[in-house]
Amino acid sequence: MFAPLQNDHFLRACRRQATPYTPLWLMRQAGRYLPEYCTTRAKAGSFMGLATNVDYATEVTLQPLDRYPLDAAILFSDILTVPDAMGLGLSFAQGEGPKFAHVVRDEAAVAKLAVPDMNKLRYVFDAVTSIRKALQGRVPLIGFSGSPWTLACYMVEGGGSDDYRLVKSLMYQRPDLMHRILTVNADAVAAYLNAQIDAGAQAVMVFDSWGGVLADGQFQDFSLTYTRRVLAQLKREHEGQDIPRIVFTKGGGLWLDDMAGLDCEVLGLDWTVNLGWARWKVGGSVGEPGKALQGHLDPNVLFAKPEQVAEQARAVLDSFGQPHTDPNRVGPTHIFNLGHGISQFTPPEHVSALVEAVHSHSKKLRG
Amino acid sequence: MFAPLQNDHFLRACRRQATPYTPLWLMRQAGRYLPEYCTTRAKAGSFMGLATNVDYATEVTLQPLDRYPLDAAILFSDILTVPDAMGLGLSFAQGEGPKFAHVVRDEAAVAKLAVPDMNKLRYVFDAVTSIRKALQGRVPLIGFSGSPWTLACYMVEGGGSDDYRLVKSLMYQRPDLMHRILTVNADAVAAYLNAQIDAGAQAVMVFDSWGGVLADGQFQDFSLTYTRRVLAQLKREHEGQDIPRIVFTKGGGLWLDDMAGLDCEVLGLDWTVNLGWARWKVGGSVGEPGKALQGHLDPNVLFAKPEQVAEQARAVLDSFGQPHTDPNRVGPTHIFNLGHGISQFTPPEHVSALVEAVHSHSKKLRG
Repeated sequence: MFAPLQNDHFLRACRRQATPYTPLWLMRQAGRYLPEYCTTRAKAGSFMGLATNVDYATEVTLQPLDRYPLDAAILFSDILTVPDAMGLGLSFAQGEGPKFAHVVRDEAAVAKLAVPDMNKLRYVFDAVTSIRKALQGRVPLIGFSGSPWTLACYMVEGGGSDDYRLVKSLMYQRPDLMHRILTVNADAVAAYLNAQIDAGAQAVMVFDSWGGVLADGQFQDFSLTYTRRVLAQLKREHEGQDIPRIVFTKGGGLWLDDMAGLDCEVLGLDWTVNLGWARWKVGGSVGEPGKALQGHLDPNVLFAKPEQVAEQARAVLDSFGQPHTDPNRVGPTHIFNLGHGISQFTPPEHVSALVEAVHSHSKKLRG
Repeated sequence: MFAPLQNDHFLRACRRQATPYTPLWLMRQAGRYLPEYCTTRAKAGSFMGLATNVDYATEVTLQPLDRYPLDAAILFSDILTVPDAMGLGLSFAQGEGPKFAHVVRDEAAVAKLAVPDMNKLRYVFDAVTSIRKALQGRVPLIGFSGSPWTLACYMVEGGGSDDYRLVKSLMYQRPDLMHRILTVNADAVAAYLNAQIDAGAQAVMVFDSWGGVLADGQFQDFSLTYTRRVLAQLKREHEGQDIPRIVFTKGGGLWLDDMAGLDCEVLGLDWTVNLGWARWKVGGSVGEPGKALQGHLDPNVLFAKPEQVAEQARAVLDSFGQPHTDPNRVGPTHIFNLGHGISQFTPPEHVSALVEAVHSHSKKLRG
């Protein structure tokens, strides 16, 4: 059904297999910093108009690949499609963040929550298949979802938040209700990711964007437990291919030991974590089990001059150290990425400098 | 000049001396959650009207002590008084955060920066003396400042920020200019804290509120180095009394090993850090050197029911474990606090439950 894969460096690195250079993709790589994205978005009329239209979603997903030799594509969508399908009424006001028409703050609202009919998310799965076809095997396609906790933050707060007061108030006052929300979310996220896999996603990533706002103890109980519940339900392979699973908790560096036990192949890291330390903790030796690591350049580096961008990219690669090069065994691997989504204000030519530096320096690192 | 101290548990815990219970104070304990504070603020007309008026600043500093048996007072002021004295023109628009009329984003603006004449901050030092007198020795008075990096964030951004894009752009593009800003800030902060000590502050705290947004490597170079520069210049004692120094980097848990080397007595921690782990890393054994630890309850816990607040407070105390009780030697100690400032929406009676739980449970912990 789909063309054979030409560049499998990303998938190999996910499996901790040796690659000739460090593969790279960027969170939010299809986005407002690209003028061609802005053109498509203008045609679509709104963010959700863009995300729900299969042709537009396909077009913008491929745009960064036409500019840069990236090693993976990621589905263009939003993390809030799942609660939207639960009936909460997602919208994006001009120049503002996401907003839900209905919020989940009391027993009655929680009682109404259920895993949504996946047909309501058909537009996402159709986009996955369409993108996969359009890629013609150039690079693998990553599917994704918000984590159960991150979705709950938006569902309770009704949008973004500075202090997470409402969602944490509910968590501390009514842990029973919060566990119920998270259970529904976890089962919904698992069904959502499995449907993306069926539709053609070759790896999946769970964005625990707000796990890092939790206290030690609460993170384990209210975020990690439900990420684990998602992972336990995910398909391990599809049509004979294994499907690597990436978990990224922004601000979760302190809990790396806890995350080492997750049943996933890759851990995403933000820029606060020393990559050498993370490798030592969870990266595993050659021939031994471990996690592939993904990350972690500060997106603000991209505002520096191209030669400074290259220097910082080399510093990230050096902090991980030499990835293993044994063709016959697994070992520590690194997938280069940012530690958060790329800023809309990023000069596109600085991304070229980044990609060039990562590919060339990581080849040199392998000797 | 000042009355003798009646409750020295906080200062003893700073020095890692045994105390009969775990002393407690709350960041931003004088604030909008207290109706009496709102009354005084209304009289003052504006936040800066409140902070610059010695009588009002004294009044609001003492208000939480009249409600709760807290173990320390902290000067009522703002962290941005220093850049204001540098001529940047601080203001607080109604319902918004701080704003500077002049920002520091280019070579010309950086060249103009200098350590301000401390006479421009006389109102702060007068408030310190006035508060110290008004306290009549009930509890010790803590002075404070923003860290050099945290002040720089506001000076470059011109106010608060979501992404620290401007300050990080300057840092990555022109590290020379950023180092110059930070050097001036460090020397200004040191002079400012020393003047607070001269005026009567019995301990001082450096708030590195935004150190945690930096990448590993940048934190050490652009935040920690300048905190160290401040500490090196601080007076160790005043009129025969030692002056403990507290450093708090919000989101800095991953860098605890780096901070262990700081020349200060106490490290503040936010709620993401496991206190038992922090104690093991930097708390030191009985008779050995180490850091006292301060923190770290999530302020959002205070929105739960009073018995739930008490339960979470006990969990924080338990996570630290039993503080040492040897009257003749130093050892691991804990100062109870929040991991961030108290929210303006906090029900004041929940703070009573917190204080009661901390004092009673920590007595029990000592057996």
